[in-house]
Amino acid sequence: MQVLLVHGPNLNLLGERNPAVYGTTTLLDIEADVAAVVNRRGGALLCYQSNHEGALIDFLHQHRKVADGVLINAGGLTHTSVALRDAIEAIQLPTVEVHLSNTHRREGFRHRSLLSAVCIGQVTGLGREGYTVAAELLLDVLEGKR
Amino acid sequence: MQVLLVHGPNLNLLGERNPAVYGTTTLLDIEADVAAVVNRRGGALLCYQSNHEGALIDFLHQHRKVADGVLINAGGLTHTSVALRDAIEAIQLPTVEVHLSNTHRREGFRHRSLLSAVCIGQVTGLGREGYTVAAELLLDVLEGKR
Amino acid sequence: MQVLLVHGPNLNLLGERNPAVYGTTTLLDIEADVAAVVNRRGGALLCYQSNHEGALIDFLHQHRKVADGVLINAGGLTHTSVALRDAIEAIQLPTVEVHLSNTHRREGFRHRSLLSAVCIGQVTGLGREGYTVAAELLLDVLEGKR
Amino acid sequence: MQVLLVHGPNLNLLGERNPAVYGTTTLLDIEADVAAVVNRRGGALLCYQSNHEGALIDFLHQHRKVADGVLINAGGLTHTSVALRDAIEAIQLPTVEVHLSNTHRREGFRHRSLLSAVCIGQVTGLGREGYTVAAELLLDVLEGKR
Amino acid sequence: MQVLLVHGPNLNLLGERNPAVYGTTTLLDIEADVAAVVNRRGGALLCYQSNHEGALIDFLHQHRKVADGVLINAGGLTHTSVALRDAIEAIQLPTVEVHLSNTHRREGFRHRSLLSAVCIGQVTGLGREGYTVAAELLLDVLEGKR
Amino acid sequence: MQVLLVHGPNLNLLGERNPAVYGTTTLLDIEADVAAVVNRRGGALLCYQSNHEGALIDFLHQHRKVADGVLINAGGLTHTSVALRDAIEAIQLPTVEVHLSNTHRREGFRHRSLLSAVCIGQVTGLGREGYTVAAELLLDVLEGKR
Amino acid sequence: MQVLLVHGPNLNLLGERNPAVYGTTTLLDIEADVAAVVNRRGGALLCYQSNHEGALIDFLHQHRKVADGVLINAGGLTHTSVALRDAIEAIQLPTVEVHLSNTHRREGFRHRSLLSAVCIGQVTGLGREGYTVAAELLLDVLEGKR
Amino acid sequence: MQVLLVHGPNLNLLGERNPAVYGTTTLLDIEADVAAVVNRRGGALLCYQSNHEGALIDFLHQHRKVADGVLINAGGLTHTSVALRDAIEAIQLPTVEVHLSNTHRREGFRHRSLLSAVCIGQVTGLGREGYTVAAELLLDVLEGKR
Amino acid sequence: MQVLLVHGPNLNLLGERNPAVYGTTTLLDIEADVAAVVNRRGGALLCYQSNHEGALIDFLHQHRKVADGVLINAGGLTHTSVALRDAIEAIQLPTVEVHLSNTHRREGFRHRSLLSAVCIGQVTGLGREGYTVAAELLLDVLEGKR
Amino acid sequence: MQVLLVHGPNLNLLGERNPAVYGTTTLLDIEADVAAVVNRRGGALLCYQSNHEGALIDFLHQHRKVADGVLINAGGLTHTSVALRDAIEAIQLPTVEVHLSNTHRREGFRHRSLLSAVCIGQVTGLGREGYTVAAELLLDVLEGKR
Amino acid sequence: MQVLLVHGPNLNLLGERNPAVYGTTTLLDIEADVAAVVNRRGGALLCYQSNHEGALIDFLHQHRKVADGVLINAGGLTHTSVALRDAIEAIQLPTVEVHLSNTHRREGFRHRSLLSAVCIGQVTGLGREGYTVAAELLLDVLEGKR
Amino acid sequence: MQVLLVHGPNLNLLGERNPAVYGTTTLLDIEADVAAVVNRRGGALLCYQSNHEGALIDFLHQHRKVADGVLINAGGLTHTSVALRDAIEAIQLPTVEVHLSNTHRREGFRHRSLLSAVCIGQVTGLGREGYTVAAELLLDVLEGKR
Repeated sequence: MQVLLVHGPNLNLLGERNPAVYGTTTLLDIEADVAAVVNRRGGALLCYQSNHEGALIDFLHQHRKVADGVLINAGGLTHTSVALRDAIEAIQLPTVEVHLSNTHRREGFRHRSLLSAVCIGQVTGLGREGYTVAAELLLDVLEGKR
Repeated sequence: MQVLLVHGPNLNLLGERNPAVYGTTTLLDIEADVAAVVNRRGGALLCYQSNHEGALIDFLHQHRKVADGVLINAGGLTHTSVALRDAIEAIQLPTVEVHLSNTHRREGFRHRSLLSAVCIGQVTGLGREGYTVAAELLLDVLEGKR
Repeated sequence: MQVLLVHGPNLNLLGERNPAVYGTTTLLDIEADVAAVVNRRGGALLCYQSNHEGALIDFLHQHRKVADGVLINAGGLTHTSVALRDAIEAIQLPTVEVHLSNTHRREGFRHRSLLSAVCIGQVTGLGREGYTVAAELLLDVLEGKR
Repeated sequence: MQVLLVHGPNLNLLGERNPAVYGTTTLLDIEADVAAVVNRRGGALLCYQSNHEGALIDFLHQHRKVADGVLINAGGLTHTSVALRDAIEAIQLPTVEVHLSNTHRREGFRHRSLLSAVCIGQVTGLGREGYTVAAELLLDVLEGKR
Repeated sequence: MQVLLVHGPNLNLLGERNPAVYGTTTLLDIEADVAAVVNRRGGALLCYQSNHEGALIDFLHQHRKVADGVLINAGGLTHTSVALRDAIEAIQLPTVEVHLSNTHRREGFRHRSLLSAVCIGQVTGLGREGYTVAAELLLDVLEGKR
Repeated sequence: MQVLLVHGPNLNLLGERNPAVYGTTTLLDIEADVAAVVNRRGGALLCYQSNHEGALIDFLHQHRKVADGVLINAGGLTHTSVALRDAIEAIQLPTVEVHLSNTHRREGFRHRSLLSAVCIGQVTGLGREGYTVAAELLLDVLEGKR
Repeated sequence: MQVLLVHGPNLNLLGERNPAVYGTTTLLDIEADVAAVVNRRGGALLCYQSNHEGALIDFLHQHRKVADGVLINAGGLTHTSVALRDAIEAIQLPTVEVHLSNTHRREGFRHRSLLSAVCIGQVTGLGREGYTVAAELLLDVLEGKR
Repeated sequence: MQVLLVHGPNLNLLGERNPAVYGTTTLLDIEADVAAVVNRRGGALLCYQSNHEGALIDFLHQHRKVADGVLINAGGLTHTSVALRDAIEAIQLPTVEVHLSNTHRREGFRHRSLLSAVCIGQVTGLGREGYTVAAELLLDVLEGKR
Repeated sequence: MQVLLVHGPNLNLLGERNPAVYGTTTLLDIEADVAAVVNRRGGALLCYQSNHEGALIDFLHQHRKVADGVLINAGGLTHTSVALRDAIEAIQLPTVEVHLSNTHRREGFRHRSLLSAVCIGQVTGLGREGYTVAAELLLDVLEGKR
Repeated sequence: MQVLLVHGPNLNLLGERNPAVYGTTTLLDIEADVAAVVNRRGGALLCYQSNHEGALIDFLHQHRKVADGVLINAGGLTHTSVALRDAIEAIQLPTVEVHLSNTHRREGFRHRSLLSAVCIGQVTGLGREGYTVAAELLLDVLEGKR
Repeated sequence: MQVLLVHGPNLNLLGERNPAVYGTTTLLDIEADVAAVVNRRGGALLCYQSNHEGALIDFLHQHRKVADGVLINAGGLTHTSVALRDAIEAIQLPTVEVHLSNTHRREGFRHRSLLSAVCIGQVTGLGREGYTVAAELLLDVLEGKR
Repeated sequence: MQVLLVHGPNLNLLGERNPAVYGTTTLLDIEADVAAVVNRRGGALLCYQSNHEGALIDFLHQHRKVADGVLINAGGLTHTSVALRDAIEAIQLPTVEVHLSNTHRREGFRHRSLLSAVCIGQVTGLGREGYTVAAELLLDVLEGKR
């Protein structure tokens, strides 16, 4: 079972940017959390972060035949990228969308996700734990439990 | 640790309504799932379903002092009830919003949740498993792990 | 053949409220009209009025297995209740929507019906006769004539 | 009692176009249905179909002094013709609007009827029977029963 | 002179909910204030609070013949209930709308009141005193002073 | 100097329709008024009324080489016809738009004129006199006085 | 017969501003034109220009009892001043709105006139002649010819 | 305690304009009412009316250091003046907004008040009495009772 | 293989209207171009132009059984005619939409085509050549090459 | 070289209003800053502040022949005054718009400037320095350096 | 004659993604088709695909002096990229926009193309053939035939 | 003092693209201008241009600890990139937004800047000089002068 964990723009700064607000959790911490879940259930995890829309699309394309499912937090691209949406739809892998913060409490342009309709579900506003939850669920789907 | 599990209108028909689409899981199944999680972690679960906006608000008010957190799937009221939003805000308990289906794939009037901004997070489109995930997370919050 | 005739908020005041505008027809008169149609064709009619959204939903749920079709005038809930729409869709009974007045001549917020898309049709603006017309049609549908 | 039955664009193809969807009822069938109702009650029916907005307006104008009421299904003009609305208002005859299909389940631009506010009522989504229902009601109005 | 004082959803928590923001005034305090005004001018006050839209409508209906005027703070229903608006219009009693806080400083969906157009006036943002002011004015209207 | 006076849908009923509102002036009266103005200044007037959008366009096309200017009241087509707008623009004759009533006091869909931007000006709400005024002005333009 | 001719902001620059576009006609020329019409028909003309919304309102108020009708080109205030609209409505004198240019060909915010609904009519886009036309019409109204 | 009572455009015509609609109360009557309230409680009242947005702003500025609170009915400027809103915010005096009529029953552009968010509250639709009510409340605020 | 080439309002003026902008190509030139393509591939071409919406619909209806495909430039009706859209859908023939100019560079109301969703494709902004391109493509579709 | 520095409503309170937010800079300080720049480069500065839209327009008109360029901060009129926009356009002097605060971080109605399209540029959110920057630039333009 | 054929995000998956829907045509097939057309007419074709907005812009910039025209299918960037639009405008080469599917039948956010207004035309919904058609046309333009 | 000067898509073509419109200033000229300002005041300037959204974000991230402030002209990304906005916010460096042209005079989609709310200010429409002005201001801020 091969799972992709994809991080969009600015998430590389996690843990450093505004620790008072976002806490000190880093992307490595989150990747370790998710890897623990995936490994425990016999799967492998491949992580990728980029600030480039195109690189994220390339990554999804390149791994579409070796991967079984995707966890994605596309950051600001969530609200603006039709191309990323098309990529998720094109690779035909079950995908779960994750957001660290409750985007519904932020600016109006963050209330619409272009990705939601092509993902199987969303986990929003639950911080670091949202990733492990999403990972468990994706694995349930991949194992046919759902 | 006392957790409230609140179901809005029409969720009482779960499992019977359109089994081809929604599966045969019933509300009792979901409540058993959530109770298992809550009990395992030493908490108690109180479940309530109503098709009445007012009854849901009354329930939240009446248990606001004995409960520690709330899991809610408000069904169709999610998109129309300012009063229920006000109730969630008023009782000042951490609340997680759950939706069985991916509401972003349905009619336009289901894309806006009036409740999202007063909940700590959402778990959407993940079906039955969404509830246990939300329960684990709510307990993490209540235990101060987050 | 069991038909449900469901009246939403404020319709209990019919005949008394603004007789100059709405005439002196009461809900009982309308129920008698519809019962005459249904009985003549060998069916039975069960009537229900409530000012409570939840009670209307409960009523539809409770009779979903004994009834064959529904006539409904949801009053002001027509324009605001996603939960009632979901209930009509969930019970999977043929439903005809009736409005006494021509809602298109009234305030803008009355121009949209949330219920129309889940009903088989609407009869609008035809007053008391609208109900018997709708009843005849519902029975035709139930008898397989259409 | 002279009743006009007016059909707008494309209704001449009824019965032939998409029989799987619309059935095999033709405009002649509908006209026979309505004529039966009108004749039984001692009235006469004059039918007219045109794909021309202007011809429909001309027809209404020319018969405004010999007719007592109008049944109209204006097809696609329902949503776009201010001129036809003005004609219905100008001839000052009671008019009932009929639609075969439930327009609220179709494209967004079919949700608004420019004609509704100048008709006494609408019968929508009830197919062939919608016409006889509308005819009975129009005659009731013309006979002063309403 | 019989005056109704009607409180909508969540107002039962007044005084307890967020005292730092809303103060420690309770609904009983407000009812005592209003009763003092009404009694001093020889009238009687009947108070009612409910979190149920339907119950509020029922209450207005049931007292429509014994009451002379209404003071109402409909809480969150102010912005969403066409049915409550219809009830106020139907009972044909002079009604004054009161809001404790300045709703224009809050979320956008609180800027529109569905009730305003069927009330004779509004008193907004003036807190506890807003009720006595509204009561004095309603009595002036009822005594024909205006 | 050849002037065209073009009347759109329903204007043929002028003088008969709602005399209490529109007065008893007929289209013939208006045409006589305008002819008097045009003739006095040495020009000729050609009048045309149709309820057909296409016929109005045909008329404009056919006379585009023999006419010098146009006066038009397009009735309900004013608000809906891009084709008529294109015709006015295509024939490249100075055109003045006239409306009998003040369209700004009527329904919202009458507030926008598709024709205004391709006419040299509008005379609105001035009734019968509006036509002679528009004629004088058109002639001034044609005679190069403006 | 006392007629007021009121000019709003920036019209004092007429004739000097952009002669290539607006021509060399000045406000004095226009006032002479209108005075000639009014005097010929036995009336008197009082002219006023101001760049101050308040001064225009004051002027209308101060002359409301000695004047019989108003011609107004409110310039940019046409699109923004509710106060000027209220003044025109308050003084209860027949008012004709004039615009030199075809405002429908300019920026979108110039397409709406707040004044139109309280004037008896508009003359738009006809330049200098628009004023004399409007004057003739206003006098016809005042002399009861319309 | 120095209170300012500020009247916007067209309110100087009160009592004379449309007595059938607005009654015969004049601005002097209202000012006497308010003065009585203010004087009884030991305060002084300064009244000002202008049809000039700028003059209203000047007045507020000039008295900002000698006044303690403001009552304002800005008339048509309520809906259009950002500058007046800024002035109210700048002078940092408690301000209550008053409207004689129920603006929610009038044209759509009167439904939004630019001033509401910078005032402490509104009294709307209660006529002459609205002013005394607002005065009592403002004094309560100034005396620290609220 | 029978192909219909349908031209909407004002296209009859092509070549004469604004030669500087639109060139001197006439409708006959375009029809000759398309005929050459269709004939070369063994098909026949039938051309029709009308300024009447109804006549265009009639033409499509009358040839629906003898034709195999349609090329259409509906001119201004493209943006306003639901009836023409319904006709294209009803006749169930493959249809290609052509526009001479790039409608996306023109007024906002030309950006939406009501016809696009019922055609198999569009060729826009490519002038005279757009027609032959569209013809080649339509024939490919008809010959089963696509 | 004559430069006008124009200040709109409420800017006269600068330095006194909310010093914690806006600092203690006064309008005199800013005028001294700008005068220093203008004088150093051999020009003269004329300053003007008013809370009156009309007075600002008058000022621009009166100095249009003696001035060479304009610096303007129109305060709240920025967002509402078509008349002031027309004045800036009419006087045909190069104009630079200045805003002390970042209006994009404030209320939605402050995001649109009616003046921007008729100015050569904007300097926004840079506080006191914004004025000297704008002055330098305006002088560059006037000296033909740009 | 040097022609650029530019493919946006996800088009590299063509032929593999959803063959049931999109067919088995690959990008290589399309490039061969277009090359055949261009070569036959004596030109050369340079093809480029990228999932990176920036790379597409770079490519257009780098070849702007050696190329004569552009064929582009920008995929999802069509609807979101102002930067790509600016690039097409900046390089000043004739550009034709191609879309394989009829975007008007898909989600609402695909109905607007940011690129259309800077291209000379569009070919939409015609699949593989759309590219050769577009190529022929572009060459006609480049050879001065249009 | 380390200043970053960041140029978005297409700005690399400056000076070459449309010299008649944009002049012959190149990006190198602008960078020299800004470097002169920064060096004179003892700071260092680092310049970067990219057509890649992701590369711009990477650049900002990589220099966030060595830089003190940012000058940015994001070109077309200004209006579409939430990710770039998030990057500016995340690096917590004072940032000034510059635009060469007056974007308010261009297409509607250029009127909104997603970046404005996270920058300290904007300099718009002032061409080449806008950059030096912005540089001076940024340095003032960095030196604590503001």
